Amino acid sequence: MSDGIGRVETQRAVVFDDDRPLVLESGARLTHVEVAYETYGTLAADGGNVVFICHALSGDAHAAGFHGDDRRPGWWDNIVGPGRPLDTDRFFVVCANVLGGCKGTTGPGSVDPASGRPYGLRFPLLAVRDLVETHRALLRQLGVTRLLAAIGGSLGGMQALQWSLDHPGEVGGALVVASSGRLSAQNIAFSAVAREAITRDPDFAGGDYYPDPDAPADTPPPQRPNRGLALARMIGHITYLSEESMREKFGRRIQDAVEPRYGFDVDFEVESYLAYQGQSFVERFDANTYLYMTRVMDYFDPFADRAYVGRQVAAGRAAGGGGTSYLVLSFDSDWRFSTEHAREIADELRSAGAPVTFRELSAPHGHDSFLFPVPEYHRTVAGFLDRLAAGRSVHAA
Amino acid sequence: MSDGIGRVETQRAVVFDDDRPLVLESGARLTHVEVAYETYGTLAADGGNVVFICHALSGDAHAAGFHGDDRRPGWWDNIVGPGRPLDTDRFFVVCANVLGGCKGTTGPGSVDPASGRPYGLRFPLLAVRDLVETHRALLRQLGVTRLLAAIGGSLGGMQALQWSLDHPGEVGGALVVASSGRLSAQNIAFSAVAREAITRDPDFAGGDYYPDPDAPADTPPPQRPNRGLALARMIGHITYLSEESMREKFGRRIQDAVEPRYGFDVDFEVESYLAYQGQSFVERFDANTYLYMTRVMDYFDPFADRAYVGRQVAAGRAAGGGGTSYLVLSFDSDWRFSTEHAREIADELRSAGAPVTFRELSAPHGHDSFLFPVPEYHRTVAGFLDRLAAGRSVHAA
Repeated sequence: MSDGIGRVETQRAVVFDDDRPLVLESGARLTHVEVAYETYGTLAADGGNVVFICHALSGDAHAAGFHGDDRRPGWWDNIVGPGRPLDTDRFFVVCANVLGGCKGTTGPGSVDPASGRPYGLRFPLLAVRDLVETHRALLRQLGVTRLLAAIGGSLGGMQALQWSLDHPGEVGGALVVASSGRLSAQNIAFSAVAREAITRDPDFAGGDYYPDPDAPADTPPPQRPNRGLALARMIGHITYLSEESMREKFGRRIQDAVEPRYGFDVDFEVESYLAYQGQSFVERFDANTYLYMTRVMDYFDPFADRAYVGRQVAAGRAAGGGGTSYLVLSFDSDWRFSTEHAREIADELRSAGAPVTFRELSAPHGHDSFLFPVPEYHRTVAGFLDRLAAGRSVHAA
Repeated sequence: MSDGIGRVETQRAVVFDDDRPLVLESGARLTHVEVAYETYGTLAADGGNVVFICHALSGDAHAAGFHGDDRRPGWWDNIVGPGRPLDTDRFFVVCANVLGGCKGTTGPGSVDPASGRPYGLRFPLLAVRDLVETHRALLRQLGVTRLLAAIGGSLGGMQALQWSLDHPGEVGGALVVASSGRLSAQNIAFSAVAREAITRDPDFAGGDYYPDPDAPADTPPPQRPNRGLALARMIGHITYLSEESMREKFGRRIQDAVEPRYGFDVDFEVESYLAYQGQSFVERFDANTYLYMTRVMDYFDPFADRAYVGRQVAAGRAAGGGGTSYLVLSFDSDWRFSTEHAREIADELRSAGAPVTFRELSAPHGHDSFLFPVPEYHRTVAGFLDRLAAGRSVHAA
């Protein structure tokens, strides 16, 4: 395998403004939307080699390569690069931070041009469709009007799916990985508790915990709801790992000691791991974005309107190129979005007349498996993209 | 079925004092231990009809019957009463609040006689064994030296198991329901996050949130860590229900509305249910007890010392009466303590030479199934107790 794509930089573009505001599914408008993005590889003259990466809840635009002197590459570096499944020798790969995010794209921490203050919870509620439209606007600026493929895990898979349904003929292949077309009551329950952890933190202050832009320069910034956000992350993290991977990783091992200390301090290794996950998350993520993104997922339910899905799929097939081909993947140890969720997506798409390959893959990492270089998973993704690029039927036996 | 046992009252007894302190497994001493308990039925002249109920994390002594004008009976009323599996026409049934509890038995909210102030986190750490010894001391006061059976779900099952192992010949049958002999890393992770929710609540105040006993009478009581305790309960509650029961109970139904409101307020029914569970819990439970009881469970690991278990089982069989017979039950929808946990208990006990009946029962209520009147479950418990009472082998084909 290659060394990957080397140094990269995150770029920014203003994709909506006063003259051309973003009208959200809710009807609300955003008159200034910036998007942070990265690209890897070279756009083909015919524009036919674009693979768009839709990121998950806590992701960002930095999917691959290295920033400056960083020793850790982007979050999906193992799948992006020369000779890798998202082969940058052949594909022009784009990844962008989502609308509502906190990594360079406009979100609740951005300044509302109307008030000159950070939005906080005055930022409008979002739908997966709004995330997609923001990235489509970015691509238009880059001269891209069609995707060879959209790929994403979890919330990223929801975006790839919504994109393909809303814009028939625009997405050659949608790779929907470890995702869901409709959260279960248990999924919503975990999200709800995570949100409660944030909003009950006294430092949350109704979402207005950002520094006051008008305050004197020496004003210390307000406390952020770090306790609540760390808790939310810990709760989420339990659902991202499989019981088996937790057992293998930690078992009942005691932290830094031969004997249990029998106290309330962190004692078992799994406690120390979770505490670390929570703490490191607050250093890199914004609590309001966590609220918005989990709520986006709760409400996602594209197959509630089957007539729409059927019409859009038919329109895609009529548009030439056979419409969107789907690769729907799940992992057998994922209990957040189990195979049942993936099978429901595949069944709904098939019922609507779309060509779908559905596979459950074996991997021990739970929901997080989509981030790991599982050989069969990477082979499946690479094969699907190869066939898309060759213009052959992607639904091999 | 009968109307149950009618009105009952919780009684209290001082079971350890200065002259006869309780020495805990940790070596710490408690010089004043009171226990709250209830009894149902009549103690037989030969003392051979005692069934002791060991309660779970959030239980109390009020297992059956009605207090005063209450319209809701005790927490396990469906299994206790004339003609019910714990048949009060035949058995003398006892239930007592655990050591470290907050329902009348000495715990972290009790006044430390040494300081005249509530213990808070200065209350000593506990082991399951300490809970058992406290209840044994109560029974000695009641003139009881041997149990026909000890029964309990979850943490209650741990107590029944520990009791039988520590005191060979004392427990005729141990009914260990929906329990575990050793928490998994995932179990510990959920407990750890619940504890973090409590201890990060600013109102937790290091566990010292009780009213100051020396404060003037008109001093308002301090805030209690209600936000943290409610969150802990919400997290716990998700693990008590099965995904299936959540789906059937709530699905994706929207609360009090036909259309989703697309906001951060409670919208889905499952959110409102969890919020209610959290809120009602803080009105009846103490956060420090939650910390102590979850930690007791984390450290429980009786089969870590297999030589001890083997010796104790052998001593029980030598003591006459054949030692303890075990009924180990799990529920197929319980993912907190899955059948795997129950099977491990059964396997360990069998390896040690104990007679064990192990059954996985079908019930949709997840971990909480042990509290429900599932017909096959109640038949199994009743049959086991019948055979114990008749002095027959309880391990029917």
